[in-house]
Parts: sequence; structure tokens; C-alpha cells
Amino acid sequence: MDTSLPHISVGLLGLGTVGSEVARLLRDEALIAERSGVRITLAKVAVAHPGRGRPGVPPGALTGDPWEVVTSPGVDVVVELIGGIEPARSLALRALELGKPVVTANKQLLAEHGPELFERANRSGADVRFEGSVGGGIPLVRAIREALTAARIHSITGILNGTTNYVLTRMAQEGWSFADALAAARREGFTEADPSDDIEGHDAAAKLAILASAAFGCRVTSGDVFREGIAAITPRDMAYARELGFAIKLLAIGRLRDGEVEARVHPALIPLAHPLAQVADEFNALEVEADGLGPVVLSGRGAGGPPTAVAVVGDIIDVARRRALGGRGFADPFRLLPRRIRPIDDIVLPFYLNLQVTDRPGVFARVATVFGEERVSIASIVQKSRGEVAEVVLVTHDAPERSVRRVLARLRELDVVKTVSSVIRVEATV
Amino acid sequence: MDTSLPHISVGLLGLGTVGSEVARLLRDEALIAERSGVRITLAKVAVAHPGRGRPGVPPGALTGDPWEVVTSPGVDVVVELIGGIEPARSLALRALELGKPVVTANKQLLAEHGPELFERANRSGADVRFEGSVGGGIPLVRAIREALTAARIHSITGILNGTTNYVLTRMAQEGWSFADALAAARREGFTEADPSDDIEGHDAAAKLAILASAAFGCRVTSGDVFREGIAAITPRDMAYARELGFAIKLLAIGRLRDGEVEARVHPALIPLAHPLAQVADEFNALEVEADGLGPVVLSGRGAGGPPTAVAVVGDIIDVARRRALGGRGFADPFRLLPRRIRPIDDIVLPFYLNLQVTDRPGVFARVATVFGEERVSIASIVQKSRGEVAEVVLVTHDAPERSVRRVLARLRELDVVKTVSSVIRVEATV
Repeated sequence: MDTSLPHISVGLLGLGTVGSEVARLLRDEALIAERSGVRITLAKVAVAHPGRGRPGVPPGALTGDPWEVVTSPGVDVVVELIGGIEPARSLALRALELGKPVVTANKQLLAEHGPELFERANRSGADVRFEGSVGGGIPLVRAIREALTAARIHSITGILNGTTNYVLTRMAQEGWSFADALAAARREGFTEADPSDDIEGHDAAAKLAILASAAFGCRVTSGDVFREGIAAITPRDMAYARELGFAIKLLAIGRLRDGEVEARVHPALIPLAHPLAQVADEFNALEVEADGLGPVVLSGRGAGGPPTAVAVVGDIIDVARRRALGGRGFADPFRLLPRRIRPIDDIVLPFYLNLQVTDRPGVFARVATVFGEERVSIASIVQKSRGEVAEVVLVTHDAPERSVRRVLARLRELDVVKTVSSVIRVEATV
Repeated sequence: MDTSLPHISVGLLGLGTVGSEVARLLRDEALIAERSGVRITLAKVAVAHPGRGRPGVPPGALTGDPWEVVTSPGVDVVVELIGGIEPARSLALRALELGKPVVTANKQLLAEHGPELFERANRSGADVRFEGSVGGGIPLVRAIREALTAARIHSITGILNGTTNYVLTRMAQEGWSFADALAAARREGFTEADPSDDIEGHDAAAKLAILASAAFGCRVTSGDVFREGIAAITPRDMAYARELGFAIKLLAIGRLRDGEVEARVHPALIPLAHPLAQVADEFNALEVEADGLGPVVLSGRGAGGPPTAVAVVGDIIDVARRRALGGRGFADPFRLLPRRIRPIDDIVLPFYLNLQVTDRPGVFARVATVFGEERVSIASIVQKSRGEVAEVVLVTHDAPERSVRRVLARLRELDVVKTVSSVIRVEATV
């Protein structure tokens, strides 16, 4: 190895799935030096039980105290892989105060406290990098923040959670129920012990908040994202959707419309020919649309230790290079334009509905009248007799969510409507 | 606009399709400043006929002399959009000598003289950026050189030419002949006046040389890339391929195998389920495979003024930021490991063949014997009688190209073989 190269020391917080893979990649110092032009060494690693020793980490580098890593003069760059809000937030803020760049894969921290970190980074001239927080080894953050800086991005549409995509793929391909598909995901190791973070869309919402903030230059937090999970999707919805030419995916959607931001995570019908309809199993993908650019789609394995570690080390190399060159640090400007988050009620979309109605003459007309009176126009309607009850599958034209809610409330009051079993939004653009 | 921001002046060489779009994007100085943290102004523009004036470019900025742009003390960053080798090469080298970063979209220059530019850049501490040279607005170079720096990339497989992909898509979807599909591409404005650069794979080969160099850290020039065009593909090949479960695409393939590099551009059968099989019309895409990462696929509109300009301005912003921060410049190390380019004869692949043979008993056996004697094993064989001649469609197992060439030579000598109408390589991995 070329010892004349500039040298940067890394302090690592956390040695879990991603952390130990980051440590493993950094061990190949010669490879990293050859590719980056910088010698990068792992100087300190904070773990919960330093006494245990870790294969591949010099015992002298281990400590039980993350603050020691952050404040050590021997650490130039801090890599936060603890996860959660505290103490990760305080540690990152302190590192930035000390002028040390922070690399993190902590989506929750970014999605909830991103602006605080960026503001602190801007003051000290350090840098916050977070490619690993979204999309594993797919360079989503880099594409939005760097490659497409010159483009006016008006839409991002993603499949950002591998667990739910795996579940929906099994339901679509095997005809399984949600519960059976979730059990399969568990067997394959694609779920957390408590899968609700994935299933209810929290994970995707945090990732969308991060990407939408970067794409539209404003503050979007997890709490700003409208969120609906996939537990209510049935195999019958899957089958009808396919009949109509659609797949059902858990989409994370960010749109800039008339200066306002739409940010929502929910199951949606998308045309089978749409590139995102073809993203199967645990894969993730993001479609970015910008003026003059045409759709750009990035896809890959969105999670897991090794892909995320590749993203984290890519960020480490970037900040190490920058630091090694002298000059002051650079906090990428994270624009914070004052944009309103558009409430879900004001969002205009087509809807797919599945109703169970009494199977007798005139029912159809009564249902259609409700839609007409609420000015929600129907694009297609199919009635299937299933004995005593008939099933009505119906897709509307574009309609404001608030109008569809009124339609639903009125339908539920009709004695001929037994149940409204499904209401799923439709993303109709290909 | 925040006039306290650091300020960088850009000199532009060439104001064609891409150049005028770059100038248009740079005119929105407030937007660029807000996103980049740097004020970027267009100081000088070299065009062939400066007297004519150009809308949106201040007349004082226009000059007929590109050297004036490069050497002007008022130009910090040089953007080369002239194309071709000379004078682009000399101008870029001079700019680098002067310590000025160069941004270019010139694939030919990069593919043939990349190492010379990088070597010069390394000496002066300037930087060469070339995202616009490959894949329009899809951040392919950035993904390989930056996002995946930490990954060991072992394979890149791309559809890197929009014209040929449009032609092959029309042949596949409409059943058109090559000539008719090419005429349609011409009507749609997807071809150059002379389409041979696209059709014969030169364009894709130059792009592959650039990407393979970056991915494998070695010198790969256009001339190192094995190249075969699409003019011989017939609608019948398209139909048989589909019957066998394959699409036919013009693939650009770079592989690292036992320390050697495969670099080839040729039509190939790929399984219909492969993500690249679904890239239609004029779209481009690249699949990157690296240890531990799983396939990452990036796709989008691979050419055209506006997408390419977004890539170029993204690069301008990067080098401007870097320059604005002080410290010395940074020439990304373009590793030049001494890797052998594997000759096409040594490459091992399955092959698809289409033979016209005399339709009588025993012919099949004679054909099969030739394969057996050359130790090329047959995976599937279908014979279709078409009157006096029978058509034999045959897919081999993996076989060295040199063996398949021997088989072909021997088949052509058999009196029962009328013609070998198609020989197409197969990329069988999904």
C-alpha cells in the first residue's frame, strides 16, 4: 500500500449486521486505498460489550463508551450504526460540533431529525452522509442529491420496503393470503421479530421522508407522510387487479404539485407494464421523474448487511477524500424551502373499490347514484354474482380523496351494501 | 440569490444540442446556487460562428476561439461539448495542465484517450468528470465510481444504445424486418444521418469501454471491445427467441473473470424475465453485479440534449463545489491495473443457431455429430419442416466461442446444410 497517501481514521458506533460488514470492508485497506486514493483505518469501535472481543477488530480499538469514539482526537470521521433516536442523535450532533463528518444508515434519525443535523453540519462545515439509510446498495440518495441536482424533480415513486414487497409478490404469484405470505417472509428471514414497522408502512414512510426532503428541498418528516399498511389486501384484490391490468404494490410516493408536497405510503394498483410492477420479491426500486429527463429507475436489493455496508463505506470514502484534500469541510446544502404538505383529503387519484351487495335488480343503480351525487365518476364497473350477494369491482376516474370518503360513508349506509371490503388507490401513470 | 456564496466561472466549448441545454440550465443561477451552495456563472462560450449570436448567451461571452476559453483567467472550469477527438483532446489536456477541472460528455475521447486525461489530471490535481458521456440522465458513472467504490464489481451488463434498442423493440413487438424498424427509428428521430455508428455497435462499445474501465480499474479502450451489430437479426430469430423464452437485445457486457476482462457488444438472447429484457424502445439500462450486493439496475432515457445536460450540470456542480472549498483539487484515481482483455475466442457462452437443412432422414444425425465431435453440447433442438428445407433451431450449453466457430465451419461444408442463417450468443443468467 502507498503510505504516502493521506490518512483518515474512522470511529464506528455499533457493530451489528451492518457495522460488522463495514468493519470487514474497511479491513481491506489496500483495496480501499487503491480505489479512493486515501488510506482509511478503523481506529475505534463502540460496542455494548467490549470485553467479548470481535473477530477482525483489534482489541485495543474496542470500547464500551460511544462518547469516547466521538470525542477522541484520533477519530476523524464518525460512522453511526447504532440506530434509533437516542443516543444516536446526541452523538451525531456532538461529532458535527467537533467538525467531524458523520456517516449514518439511521433512517429514523434522518427522517425525524434530519434538519437539525444538517443545520449543525452547516455551522461547523462538516458533512452528514446517509446513503445507507435508504435502499441498501442502490444509490438513491446520491442520485437525487448529486446526479440530478440540476434537474427539477417533480415526482419520486418507490418500492422502499423489501418485506412488504416480498409478501405482496407471494400473494400475487401464489394466490396466498396475507397471513400465509407473511409467514413465508418470516421463514425466509425477511421480517423483524415484530413485523409491524414494515407491514404498517412506518419503514417506507421514514425512507420516503428522507428522499422527499432531498428531492423537493423541504422538510418532510415521518409524521408528515400519510401511511396505510398492506394487511387489508386480499388474494381476491390481487386477482381482480390483475384482471384489470394492474399489480398491487406498497408504494412510497412523493410529488411536487403547485409548490405543495404530496407524501404518502399506501398499497396502490399500478399498471402491469409499469417498471415498478415488475419489481418482485424483496427488491426495492425508485422511479424519479424530472423536467426534461424522462423517468429514471434504480433498483436492487434494498436492505441487508452487505448492500447497506457498501453504501456506508461509499459515503466514508467520499468524506475521507474530501477531508484528506484540505480546504474546509462541506455541508451539502439541504434546502429547506417552506413547502406545505398537502393533506391526504386534497389528493386526487383514481380508486379501486370492492363492494359486496345484495344480488337483486336496482342495486347497481343505487350504488351508481351515490357516486354521481358526490361527483365521483366511474371508469369501469364489474358485477360478479356469488350466490346471495354480488361482488361489485369498481374503478373510478380521478377523484379527490375527500369525495371518495363521502361516497364510502354513504355506501355503508345503504341497506343493499353488505360491506365495502377494499378501497385501494390507483397510480395510473405508466 | 446569496451573493456571499463562493463563485465559479464556467467556460463552455460547443453549443450544440447538449451545450445549449447546459447553457439554459446554468441560466437559472438562483436555483443552482440554492441547490449547490455555489454561484455558477457561464463566463465564456466557444462556438463556430460567434457573430450569429445565441439566445440566452450574453454576446460578450461568445468567441470563435476555444483556446481563449480554456486559457482565460476568468474561466475556472472547462466544459467540453465539441465531441470527436481533436481539438477536444488537446483543449482538455491544456485545461487540466492549467489545473482547471474538465467536464465532458465526449464518449469517443474518453473511450480512446481516457487514461491520458486521467494521468494529466492526476499531475495537476484537477478533475475529469464524464457522467454525460454514458447513459444520458442515468447516473451510471457515478454509481460505479462513487456509490459502489467499496464493492468488488464483477459484472456490468447494459443496453447502452437507444437507437438499436428502439429497432429491436419494434422488430420484437411488431414483427418488422430490421430495415423497416430502422426506417421507423429514422422517422422518430432516433438515428443519426449515418446510423452505422449505432447499428454496428461502435457507440455502445465506446460507452462500455468507459464503464468497464471504471468498474474494473484497468484500461479498456473502444478497440479492446469485441463488437458485432444488429443488422443480421431477423424477425424469425425474434419469434424463435420468444418461443424459447428469450428476448434479443444488443448487450454491452463487461466481466471480470479470473483477473481478466471480457468486454463485448453483440446481440444476445436474454431470458424474458431478466430486467434488461423489459427495457423497451429508446431506453437504456445497466445492471451492475458486485460481491454481496445483488444486482443493481439503473435505467432511463440514455441520450438526448436535456438528460445529458442534467448529467453535465451535475458534474459541473460537483467540481465547482470542490473548487469553491479550497484545498487542492482531486483527481479521482482511475486505477490502471494491468488486466488482460480476454479474446473473444476464449469466451464461454451458450449459443443460439438457426440452420436451413435438406429435409430428409439422417440430416439431424449428421448435424448433431459435428457438435459432438467438437465437444459442443446441445441444450435444445427444434426442427421445423418448411417444404424442401427444414429449419433447425438449436441452443447449445456453455461452449468456448472457438469451438462454436469450428462447428460452424464444418456445418457450412456439409452438403445437407443449405445455410447457417443466424448465430447469436445467449446470456442465460437471470
